[in-house]
Amino acid sequence: MVEDVSKTAEEMAKEQRAVSVSEFFERNRHLLGYDNPTKALLTVVKEMVDNSLDACEEARILPKIYVEIKQKTPEIFHVVSKDNGPGIVDKQIPFTMAKLLYGSKFFKLYQSRGQQGLGIKGCVLYSQLTTGKPTTVISSIGDGKTSYYELMVDVKRNEPNIITHRVEEDGRIWHGLKIEMDIEGRYIESKTSVNEYIRQTAIANPYAEIIFDGPNGKIEYPRTANVLPPLPKEIKPHPHGIELGMFRRMLESTKSRNIVGFLVNDFSRVGRNSAEEVCKLAGIDQNKNPSQISNEESEVLFKALKKVKLMRPPTDCLSPLGEDLLLKGMQKEIKAEFFAAITRPTSVYRGNPFVVECAIAYGGELPQDSSVEVMRLSNKVPLLYQAGDCAITKAIATTDWKRYGLQQSGKSLPSGPAVIMVHFASVWVPYVSESKQALAAYPAIMKEIKLGLQELGRRLQKHVSGKRKAEMQKKRRKIFERYIPEVAKSLEELADIKKEIIQKKLIEMIEKKTVKIDEVEENVEEGSGRKVSEVREEDSE
Amino acid sequence: MVEDVSKTAEEMAKEQRAVSVSEFFERNRHLLGYDNPTKALLTVVKEMVDNSLDACEEARILPKIYVEIKQKTPEIFHVVSKDNGPGIVDKQIPFTMAKLLYGSKFFKLYQSRGQQGLGIKGCVLYSQLTTGKPTTVISSIGDGKTSYYELMVDVKRNEPNIITHRVEEDGRIWHGLKIEMDIEGRYIESKTSVNEYIRQTAIANPYAEIIFDGPNGKIEYPRTANVLPPLPKEIKPHPHGIELGMFRRMLESTKSRNIVGFLVNDFSRVGRNSAEEVCKLAGIDQNKNPSQISNEESEVLFKALKKVKLMRPPTDCLSPLGEDLLLKGMQKEIKAEFFAAITRPTSVYRGNPFVVECAIAYGGELPQDSSVEVMRLSNKVPLLYQAGDCAITKAIATTDWKRYGLQQSGKSLPSGPAVIMVHFASVWVPYVSESKQALAAYPAIMKEIKLGLQELGRRLQKHVSGKRKAEMQKKRRKIFERYIPEVAKSLEELADIKKEIIQKKLIEMIEKKTVKIDEVEENVEEGSGRKVSEVREEDSE
Repeated sequence: MVEDVSKTAEEMAKEQRAVSVSEFFERNRHLLGYDNPTKALLTVVKEMVDNSLDACEEARILPKIYVEIKQKTPEIFHVVSKDNGPGIVDKQIPFTMAKLLYGSKFFKLYQSRGQQGLGIKGCVLYSQLTTGKPTTVISSIGDGKTSYYELMVDVKRNEPNIITHRVEEDGRIWHGLKIEMDIEGRYIESKTSVNEYIRQTAIANPYAEIIFDGPNGKIEYPRTANVLPPLPKEIKPHPHGIELGMFRRMLESTKSRNIVGFLVNDFSRVGRNSAEEVCKLAGIDQNKNPSQISNEESEVLFKALKKVKLMRPPTDCLSPLGEDLLLKGMQKEIKAEFFAAITRPTSVYRGNPFVVECAIAYGGELPQDSSVEVMRLSNKVPLLYQAGDCAITKAIATTDWKRYGLQQSGKSLPSGPAVIMVHFASVWVPYVSESKQALAAYPAIMKEIKLGLQELGRRLQKHVSGKRKAEMQKKRRKIFERYIPEVAKSLEELADIKKEIIQKKLIEMIEKKTVKIDEVEENVEEGSGRKVSEVREEDSE
Repeated sequence: MVEDVSKTAEEMAKEQRAVSVSEFFERNRHLLGYDNPTKALLTVVKEMVDNSLDACEEARILPKIYVEIKQKTPEIFHVVSKDNGPGIVDKQIPFTMAKLLYGSKFFKLYQSRGQQGLGIKGCVLYSQLTTGKPTTVISSIGDGKTSYYELMVDVKRNEPNIITHRVEEDGRIWHGLKIEMDIEGRYIESKTSVNEYIRQTAIANPYAEIIFDGPNGKIEYPRTANVLPPLPKEIKPHPHGIELGMFRRMLESTKSRNIVGFLVNDFSRVGRNSAEEVCKLAGIDQNKNPSQISNEESEVLFKALKKVKLMRPPTDCLSPLGEDLLLKGMQKEIKAEFFAAITRPTSVYRGNPFVVECAIAYGGELPQDSSVEVMRLSNKVPLLYQAGDCAITKAIATTDWKRYGLQQSGKSLPSGPAVIMVHFASVWVPYVSESKQALAAYPAIMKEIKLGLQELGRRLQKHVSGKRKAEMQKKRRKIFERYIPEVAKSLEELADIKKEIIQKKLIEMIEKKTVKIDEVEENVEEGSGRKVSEVREEDSE
């Protein structure tokens, strides 16, 4: 039965060994966003700025972020980021910067930009891979000392490789983080490039001051709001969103001494009554120590937990942009005639609460015949790549826009003078890859985005049809006006009233009748889309 | 300058810690292909079958693979795979099955289905996460002993967790691997499901016998070729495809005692002369020990290596399907009137050799008005998900098919009665995510796919226009035939020849004139697209 096996299992066994996470991502660097030099430059800036914003918000500091890109050779760029965040404790700097899969955000259900413990480490890895140089990190936490590091990633071990390190007790009281690195890149200003990322970030984070000193000059985005949004709250996992394997690990690592305590303390939305009900359903003593639960018992307990009716996860853990901010951001950047925005109620996918926000700008100076422009955001971070694979693009393409006044062929993006913006905020964003550029199309997420888009669509439709109606009425008025002298003259003869008086009365009548249309037109000219939309709503009643 | 920092850097530091690779992929399981129950079932079968095919081919065994899926509860499926491969050495089984990022394929530039050391480990992880149960592994390497394991992944440490283990010296001489696990899944027969994966795998691997015993009954795909394709060769990295960081690590770990030896032995296409030229260009002693090369020297050396002219990477390391196999596979499964296939010459992206193969089926019973069907393959593995994000889809959508006789609106997939198949074979496949369902759109790869598609397009165009011409001629012949009696009668009077003779001659003449058309039509009916295409090519000359 044994064939001529030229390479035996034993030979094959000799070649087996472990791959470090760093080796894995070095080889698969496109997974982290380093497919090509243009995207690599964007990814580096994005990781730096996202981290700075997260750190400032967590420490309740109004962010001030400086980004510099200087071209050193045709291929090599020097990238600097500097923030006024809390800084990083000296001994943590090497791990935070140069050990992949290290961080705090992975373990928290908490709305933040970073979540994996990969981003900035990937930048250091890419920098050393393409230029062979270490990354410089300078930080202070406001204690009068400044840390200086030159760091690389020890790829084989996935540990920081400290090239130089010193702490200067210079007495300077400041806090923040400065990172400098050289990378292989290409600077192009386009819809998927650094400049657009910074622009959209400024729109979505109006409480941040961002200065971008790029190869084509300096752009300053001043702060337009002086208050930080409320700090998102960390939440516990919701029982309906976890799997058996995870449940067992939670049982093993809990600090609670009994099952009821474990259920109440380690999960969200499980009260004492619910916890006791779960134990009863499972037939397990509620005072049993979680460490003494057998595999069979944990399965029964898990099933009981899934059966008990619980409240949905809390919704105050999220920090959406809000309708006002969405509108303001769009109105500031886009020359359109109609704007609308909507923040959907909180929903849940796999136990994780999330909020979808949608906004649309229409008409005005927007191009008539091309596909609509789509702006995608998640936890206030603009997503510029992998559009085709993103739940947001899919939801837009599978919404029927012909009903709402845009053109659309099949299940593709609609065409017309419009910009559609969708923001997804969640304690855990399901990205389709580590480069975090597209959302996975979970059914619950798709549904929420589509509901938001349909609501926008209805408002748009009212505007578009209202606009048509107004144009029609204006045309009729013009025709009528043309005949006024003729009519006045005939009436003068019939009624023996001076034609000048009749003419005046007729004009007054027309003006009264069509005053609403004028109001609408003025509003349109002011760009105050919200009002137009409201006027239209009254009209159609 | 220091604001009211409610959460200091020190508090934030306390929350930092390392994430194990297993934890990372457990949380981000959609990255490995476990987004939903349907896709999860496909992913598990795919990882099992891909591994079995790789192992058999490496050991030069004609593969016989058995896959069983049984529904246990509405959500839980029992999945079994069994192969006649070389088996796995007893002590390696836990690592091969239950330690993420462990394997041999990552370190070799070698055309194989697996490459990351993640696939089957991901299945074990997903199984325990959703069902809490270990995976059963049974294997023998033909030494009269059989290994039995029950395995789980220790998620916190990313190490195997051996639940049970025994070796039975039963004297049974066999080799192979059997895996059994329970997973949460959903079985649907569709274009992105297990049944389609198995069908396309059978097409692309005709030397494998595959038996699929699924919820809807047993399907057997017998072997249609009895010879294994030649074993792909392992190659060394090509200097033009590596970066400085990688180059430095190779310098550190080389077994060569001098630079010339290092360049010749550790790279592909660097001969002694080229190596000496590199050293001369860099101004570095060719006998210097690689371990004594400074960072500055390695950078100079690296730049010199990039400047020296070298042959492109070897091409015999790849094992494409070949035009015959592509045609046979399509003709067996698709009822069309025209087939064409092309294997492109070997090309290179980032130092990695690759081959693109394209095939098309057209007309016949294929649906007229929908989008063309696209079959994507990489290293003989069907890709069923993430179509929108794949270089193959993008290349098809950005090719101008209107020129070739298909309908197409903008840059979308063409419409018409056609199936397009593209196979990408390489020593390293750049997947856009760890679930290995789509190719990254490197420019060199896009270009090659488009060149292949354009060649197919030209052949298709000849067929389509030839078909129109033939239809036209047939119509003319029919009209002419209708007038033959009339013409014969007139000629009889004019030339004094019996009209029966004239009629016979006229029919003979028509038949002679249009015989080519008949030939074409017969070929079309036989479905032998190749000949049709050739006839067309002669015609047009």
